[in-house]
Amino acid sequence: MTDPLPQGSTIGILGGGQLGRMLSVAASRLGYRCHIFEPGAAPAGDVAHSVTTAPYEDAAALRAFAATVDVITYEFENVPTSALDLLESLKPIRPNRRALAISQDRIPEKTFLNDLGLATAPWRAVNSEADLQAATEALGLPAILKTTRLGYDGKGQVKLATTADISSAWAAMDGAPSVLEGFIAFDREVSVIAARGLDGSVAAYDPGENVHRDGILRTTTVPARLSPGQGSDAVLLAARILNALDYVGVMGVELFVTPEGLLVNEIAPRVHNSGHWTQAGCAVDQFEQHIRAVAGLPLGDGGRYADVVMENLIGDDVARVPDLLKARDAQLHLYGKGAPRPGRKMGHVNHVRRP
Amino acid sequence: MTDPLPQGSTIGILGGGQLGRMLSVAASRLGYRCHIFEPGAAPAGDVAHSVTTAPYEDAAALRAFAATVDVITYEFENVPTSALDLLESLKPIRPNRRALAISQDRIPEKTFLNDLGLATAPWRAVNSEADLQAATEALGLPAILKTTRLGYDGKGQVKLATTADISSAWAAMDGAPSVLEGFIAFDREVSVIAARGLDGSVAAYDPGENVHRDGILRTTTVPARLSPGQGSDAVLLAARILNALDYVGVMGVELFVTPEGLLVNEIAPRVHNSGHWTQAGCAVDQFEQHIRAVAGLPLGDGGRYADVVMENLIGDDVARVPDLLKARDAQLHLYGKGAPRPGRKMGHVNHVRRP
Repeated sequence: MTDPLPQGSTIGILGGGQLGRMLSVAASRLGYRCHIFEPGAAPAGDVAHSVTTAPYEDAAALRAFAATVDVITYEFENVPTSALDLLESLKPIRPNRRALAISQDRIPEKTFLNDLGLATAPWRAVNSEADLQAATEALGLPAILKTTRLGYDGKGQVKLATTADISSAWAAMDGAPSVLEGFIAFDREVSVIAARGLDGSVAAYDPGENVHRDGILRTTTVPARLSPGQGSDAVLLAARILNALDYVGVMGVELFVTPEGLLVNEIAPRVHNSGHWTQAGCAVDQFEQHIRAVAGLPLGDGGRYADVVMENLIGDDVARVPDLLKARDAQLHLYGKGAPRPGRKMGHVNHVRRP
Repeated sequence: MTDPLPQGSTIGILGGGQLGRMLSVAASRLGYRCHIFEPGAAPAGDVAHSVTTAPYEDAAALRAFAATVDVITYEFENVPTSALDLLESLKPIRPNRRALAISQDRIPEKTFLNDLGLATAPWRAVNSEADLQAATEALGLPAILKTTRLGYDGKGQVKLATTADISSAWAAMDGAPSVLEGFIAFDREVSVIAARGLDGSVAAYDPGENVHRDGILRTTTVPARLSPGQGSDAVLLAARILNALDYVGVMGVELFVTPEGLLVNEIAPRVHNSGHWTQAGCAVDQFEQHIRAVAGLPLGDGGRYADVVMENLIGDDVARVPDLLKARDAQLHLYGKGAPRPGRKMGHVNHVRRP
């Protein structure tokens, strides 16, 4: 085991978007500094001790970054392997590489989950139009074809309604390794934001109920409409994943609630958009919980003391900011990103329901 | 009237301590950047876009600072007048100079409050031992002698119990202009954290009940033990002060609750230690409320949805951090200040009482 990171230590964060931004703020509350590594624009830099702007291929910049930090974490799972190999030789990376490797590719992810005894949507690997043809026969239609890597916010996904869609769907993948997922008639989508400390302890926030539109999360509502049994199933299932990976940090586990039980949709080895509500309803939010874990501190009390609806502000939704500033019980979080673009997450609002 | 500050604008903050630090974080949530001006160590710099380290006498540094910011605010009221004169000629300063001037000196402050019809402890200006002698005869003993300027956290204060203390008490003032305050038999101390927007609207948080030890705030508890009448008196009285000063920003108003009514102890033209509880119990905390005001945004909803006890961590209290990290319903805020010293505010904890 490792001692807790002393106050005044520096945490390196790979990625400088809104998640890095909110992680840096949480780290400051615990007396830590953050150093952001980000190839592009870094809104996290506005609230970080230092920022390195360099590509992940710049070994000298990665070495200089590692020299200034005590531990490294990340705000997104698609950091190139070469950068991780170099960084891992210099400083601890938390969550660990296995969690990253699994979540970077849908096929190892689903294999890992199924091997753990957890249900997912039925799936088949697809590397050719012939594979896709065979997969549609095995799983039936409708179904969803997804690239195995780099998909997020609905990108790299095509729905197949009938066999007439097979050719165009495969063409849309542009030759990328893909996976076909069978259709799931789910009642609702929920997610569990769970954390595991360096000491192996596990904590989870109350599950949130998610609504997606065009593949992008729109709202998360707590409490989720789950029976007590479903709620504890969801949390136990998340704990099983974290323990199996010897995980350290916060993970987002997306689940489908079906009449037959809970299916795992996907896992994200990081703080998660569906956990933003914790900023308004808990003494310790998901960002602080993640920092506590990677710093080797005890996990905090994530008990909930308010009902919350978290609403993402996407693209032109920022035009609503003047109204939201006046709204009752609305906690606004803007990301400092400049001009809105369609599909771009510009901020979020936590609508607090006083008990 | 002035238009709201657009997102991406920069707010200049004079002072880089814990208040500046938490203001900078709040500004980031509204899409603003902060530039800190601080002659000494600046924990606020860990979560700010930029920091200038220079004395308040450095006109070139002040000019360069002003050139990068859109509006200027401050985390403490003792900024030298020469620096304010220069800055005010370059960029708006909010809250305004009058509020600063009044709160920098106990005599104009008490005069302003009394002229407004608000009660304070009885007081006399003291500029010599003879003055002090006369003042003790007028006000009786016990009483407290305070320097008129630069006093905070119990510094520059001496209690007089008997006439035998007169000589040593005056000697302790080292010739500084002082004020003798008569003894007040108060039931409790409360404070109102109130805000006034650029549009003249006023909002106030629920009053908090304060406990001081050795002149330093130890805890603030909400709700305070006040009758409904006292609660509304306290809030209305604060509103009267803000309106009279054409104030923009958050102000801390410290009150004594006595059998005869509320007395004003002092006012602080800034976010206030006794308002830190708002971080755990409100959608919009005092830091964001202040940023909203100085940025010309509408004031936010400060409605309270939890009971909170805020506890300061002073000096060696930081040794309790390992236990506090494990405590239930405890939201910890550490200031990144390095080594503890007696009387130094190192952090605070918001103990949330779930409803």
